Amino acid sequence: MVREIGEFGLLERISAISSGQAAGVVKGIGDDVAVLDVSGPEYLLATSDIQVEGVHFIRETITPYQLGRRVVAINVSDIAAMGGEPRWALVSLALPGSTEVGYVEEMYRGMSEQAAPAGISIVGGNLSRISSTVIVDLTLLGVVAPERLILRSTARAEDAILVTGSPGESRAGLELIRRPDLAPGSSSRQKLIERHLCPQPRLAEGQLLARSGKVTSMIDVSDGLAGDLFHICESSGKGAEIEAASLPISPAVSEIARAADADSLQWVLSGGEDYELLFTADPKSVSHLRKMLMDETGTSCTQIGKITAETCRVKIRLADGKSIHTSVKGWDHFNV
Amino acid sequence: MVREIGEFGLLERISAISSGQAAGVVKGIGDDVAVLDVSGPEYLLATSDIQVEGVHFIRETITPYQLGRRVVAINVSDIAAMGGEPRWALVSLALPGSTEVGYVEEMYRGMSEQAAPAGISIVGGNLSRISSTVIVDLTLLGVVAPERLILRSTARAEDAILVTGSPGESRAGLELIRRPDLAPGSSSRQKLIERHLCPQPRLAEGQLLARSGKVTSMIDVSDGLAGDLFHICESSGKGAEIEAASLPISPAVSEIARAADADSLQWVLSGGEDYELLFTADPKSVSHLRKMLMDETGTSCTQIGKITAETCRVKIRLADGKSIHTSVKGWDHFNV
Repeated sequence: MVREIGEFGLLERISAISSGQAAGVVKGIGDDVAVLDVSGPEYLLATSDIQVEGVHFIRETITPYQLGRRVVAINVSDIAAMGGEPRWALVSLALPGSTEVGYVEEMYRGMSEQAAPAGISIVGGNLSRISSTVIVDLTLLGVVAPERLILRSTARAEDAILVTGSPGESRAGLELIRRPDLAPGSSSRQKLIERHLCPQPRLAEGQLLARSGKVTSMIDVSDGLAGDLFHICESSGKGAEIEAASLPISPAVSEIARAADADSLQWVLSGGEDYELLFTADPKSVSHLRKMLMDETGTSCTQIGKITAETCRVKIRLADGKSIHTSVKGWDHFNV
Repeated sequence: MVREIGEFGLLERISAISSGQAAGVVKGIGDDVAVLDVSGPEYLLATSDIQVEGVHFIRETITPYQLGRRVVAINVSDIAAMGGEPRWALVSLALPGSTEVGYVEEMYRGMSEQAAPAGISIVGGNLSRISSTVIVDLTLLGVVAPERLILRSTARAEDAILVTGSPGESRAGLELIRRPDLAPGSSSRQKLIERHLCPQPRLAEGQLLARSGKVTSMIDVSDGLAGDLFHICESSGKGAEIEAASLPISPAVSEIARAADADSLQWVLSGGEDYELLFTADPKSVSHLRKMLMDETGTSCTQIGKITAETCRVKIRLADGKSIHTSVKGWDHFNV
């Protein structure tokens, strides 16, 4: 059964069947974003993400407006991690016939309001009835100049590993949604919940990093920091060492983790759905990149470790001097 | 509720919200296929179609291999109707965790076998868990030279209306699937069932018609002949007259309709899911186009009526001299 081999096992089987390569495929199945050569000055980028009621969202805890914003945002994040510019979206929607028209209109209002400032136009898609669960599948197309394209597969040993913002906040927000009685007095409640429901993709940051010419590989943090770092390592044929003490754990994450009696380190490493950018660069460029990001976007970024030559080994050095090894592939939709 | 305003009512509401036009949109929301300018020598075409278990297919009556072929075929048909060449596909799949791995592999085998001969490579997509129904949403990208692009909105008054093959066969096949005891001795059983489950898109025919320079508008028959003709009329600001006696009703359709005590004319006009090409052309080009299609692809095509100046009126002249008017918009997924 699918749940026995999991999402990544299934992906491997599918890749084997779908291995035929047509013309113009620069980067095909297996990555978050396909890179396609349309004989123009720029490459075409294509990605899609499906949101399933009861799996990715619960109708009672997210408004249709937020859901619309969310499905655009998570696709924009994938394009941002390639250094690209999003352009056009197709939306496939499956809805029970009993859905309120206003629900759908609100979802489209959310999509449009997230799309327009990013330069995206909704150009098509299709509608279908379904018996119960709401499904929204968005395909986002974008462009990138070939010399600006950044892949996950090109990290080099000794590169510094950096991450934007504060991963773990989305996971803390999820905890607050699941447990409405948790930390009632916390001033971070609304911010963390919003962070989970309507993540803000790092689009300007991704484009800036791509233009800098200093970034050697990049991915967005959707599966979890450790899992996505593993994706970089696996596709680059490298390993990684992270210093737990250097992870940017925000006070809000620490506060909610403490209230929930949970491990904030765990949330930061494997919470997922942060949509921060995780990237690698020559250690000499780190301070320049950090300053550039802060000056031009106001976004902080933190060096959390380095790439090693040890293929597919992600080592995490804890504060007490001990180390843990992880080969986790991140969030698996069939094993939750 | 969505089922009260229907698929087309909902589409209008959505179009109003999503009306922002980004750069490079030649043809956006409202058509089956978006036409996008990627600054290359060819336009990019993008379309998507979702197949929902229990709505578009029933798991007991279609093998996963057939389902895979089907979802590729119906998207290829949309690209074919623009005169384009399909290139790249993204597949979003939502599956219950209890789905057999072999089921998914068979679906991908079907997709690959339909995709490869059409020059399509599966380049991405995503996988998700879902509680019960299987969902497969395919986005297909293609290209077309700007001078070969054929839209649905450019039919001219007095143009001849033509259709390839034998619409209604898919509907007859559906009847045989629904009523396994119907017409047990018919030699057409398997062919008609196959025609419904695994339609063959008219790709070579669409490209040939586009190259001819003689076709003024085109659409594929997915919603039903009358409904898709209405789409041409509505977007061209024209009307149409069809001669019922000239409709290409195949003997197999007549036979099964008779056995089912149904009206074969009804099946041909509104059965849908035929994936034939419906197009318009100068009346002087009709015999040339028919001969060209037959000589180069072996596909028959039939003149069934003409475009009129009466906006949005589709008139069907019956054999007994009477006429019926239809303003049917075709298959509505929320009203079935």
